[in-house]
Amino acid sequence: MHVSEIPTPALVIDRDAMDHNIDVMAAARPGPMLRPHVKAFKSTALARRLRDRGGHRSFCCATLREMEGMVAADLGEDLLLANETLDAARLGRLISSSVHRLTVAIDSPETLAVAIDAARSGELAVLVDVNVGLPRCGCRPDQAGRLADSARAAGLEVRGVMGYEGHVVGDPDRDRRIEALAASMALLRAAHDDVGGEVVSSGGTGTYDLHDWANEVQAGSYLLMDWHYGRLGLPFRQAAFVDGTVVSTNDDGYAIADAGLKCFGMDHGDPTVEGYRLFFLSDEHATFLWEGERPVIGERIRLVPGHIDPTMACHERAWVTSGEEVVDTWAIDLRNW
Amino acid sequence: MHVSEIPTPALVIDRDAMDHNIDVMAAARPGPMLRPHVKAFKSTALARRLRDRGGHRSFCCATLREMEGMVAADLGEDLLLANETLDAARLGRLISSSVHRLTVAIDSPETLAVAIDAARSGELAVLVDVNVGLPRCGCRPDQAGRLADSARAAGLEVRGVMGYEGHVVGDPDRDRRIEALAASMALLRAAHDDVGGEVVSSGGTGTYDLHDWANEVQAGSYLLMDWHYGRLGLPFRQAAFVDGTVVSTNDDGYAIADAGLKCFGMDHGDPTVEGYRLFFLSDEHATFLWEGERPVIGERIRLVPGHIDPTMACHERAWVTSGEEVVDTWAIDLRNW
Repeated sequence: MHVSEIPTPALVIDRDAMDHNIDVMAAARPGPMLRPHVKAFKSTALARRLRDRGGHRSFCCATLREMEGMVAADLGEDLLLANETLDAARLGRLISSSVHRLTVAIDSPETLAVAIDAARSGELAVLVDVNVGLPRCGCRPDQAGRLADSARAAGLEVRGVMGYEGHVVGDPDRDRRIEALAASMALLRAAHDDVGGEVVSSGGTGTYDLHDWANEVQAGSYLLMDWHYGRLGLPFRQAAFVDGTVVSTNDDGYAIADAGLKCFGMDHGDPTVEGYRLFFLSDEHATFLWEGERPVIGERIRLVPGHIDPTMACHERAWVTSGEEVVDTWAIDLRNW
Repeated sequence: MHVSEIPTPALVIDRDAMDHNIDVMAAARPGPMLRPHVKAFKSTALARRLRDRGGHRSFCCATLREMEGMVAADLGEDLLLANETLDAARLGRLISSSVHRLTVAIDSPETLAVAIDAARSGELAVLVDVNVGLPRCGCRPDQAGRLADSARAAGLEVRGVMGYEGHVVGDPDRDRRIEALAASMALLRAAHDDVGGEVVSSGGTGTYDLHDWANEVQAGSYLLMDWHYGRLGLPFRQAAFVDGTVVSTNDDGYAIADAGLKCFGMDHGDPTVEGYRLFFLSDEHATFLWEGERPVIGERIRLVPGHIDPTMACHERAWVTSGEEVVDTWAIDLRNW
């Protein structure tokens, strides 16, 4: 099937660009030095590609649904729930269903209690999640040691610390990223001094090559990219697109394609359109501006998302292409909760 | 089940508020005077409620997927695809599967050709889609008559015109809505003079009570509402929410719940949080600000979406509540394409 025959709107993955991204990252952070973040692509098919081609066998997830899907797909060799959960029953069922040890983040006595409760179902390790500057989850660095002590006293293995510098990873200025990362890692280092353990898990696509101390980086967006990360000058290619078909044109300098709001995570702003300028999106339409030759009804257009993670969650499948040919379709099977 | 036991994040529908909205609209625009827009809720369960309680038996859709689902659920008595399609084969299959006549919008010779092609599979009517000021689909008013003539010459029934004043419906100033609507309807009237037919289909939630000429209004958002439409002072109640659970708190004046970007259509901006102030959303988290008493881990929070249509498309099911009790779950079965 030719790419122009895909029913639109469609999430399209350029497999060659994606494989390039896998190879570049695997050279920089081979094997366990990368813990790919499943939340960025939400698909066991993509995780399998990361394992088989990239050689990464440890993954992290943001939701229990992602964890369950990865375990069911036998991709659970070293799975981290890099997030806090209060659902001890569901976490316990997940532990029971896994042949491998799982790890979960904790940042409070309450989330530790959930881990202790769930661990009655089987082996469970924890990482202490430390706030390193992003206003989100994570305990204060000076609280981390006590939490680790409590976890160990309850019989849980404490593998180390994690801390995500989400306020740093998207800064287009590399020098500022380096500086802000150093401040975040000073906090994580202080916590790790108190917690111990062999794992220091941190980072994302924007800092993957700046980490010289953390021993695993939780990058995921690099795999498919978006225009937001594209501004950073990283060696990764845009590999995910939404293709649309022009359904209406007029004499007024704009045309309309069948790819709208429901195809995109919109929090980073509108997607861009290759060769045109986006005017605005509505639910099921992209209105875009043309100069020169008027677009033709039936013509395909290609849009680049602003934020890949929520964009993936809008789609039930991806059409996988190599050159102009469709070579596969992959289910985005880990979306929802 | 109590509402506080729903696994989060969760799309929650307050059935009492929704029924109020159905009743208010059905009093203002009974039966065929409303053609509820399925794109706003993407669920046959909600469409069935609109039929059974609201007495509306004609619906419009934005996608073929919505049309197919409505036909399969036997909700296809008078279904309009209020959008342009180039997929004659799929439209033809849909016609073959329907026991009722379907109607499709056309705005160009190309989309008319698709309708003619599809009509080889069975009965198909058309509406001429007219641009009434929103930069999107629709022919110029002075092109509508010729398109209708061509359709009739090809043996298609031309039921009339449609024109959506999407640039008007969200304006919080009622007087401005009235004025802009009059300008749009002048364009649609001119087109209808040339096209003829008994149907004049137009409007949305923000203009449902301002239309005095169009004989059917394509409103959908009124059913569940969002804070964007909530600013208009309409007599509809907020009936859809995303509930989250607080998973992390700290001494710094913010707390974190498990409802993030992937739960919301974000193009109208952040959701609001009842009782708190939203700080920001990330993929799976809402960080919100508190004053006074610190939120407790495990506490539920309730968020109000900014744009209901793409928010519905983020969820696979809705939890339907009456008071504090869960009374049903409804599949959001018409999302994707």
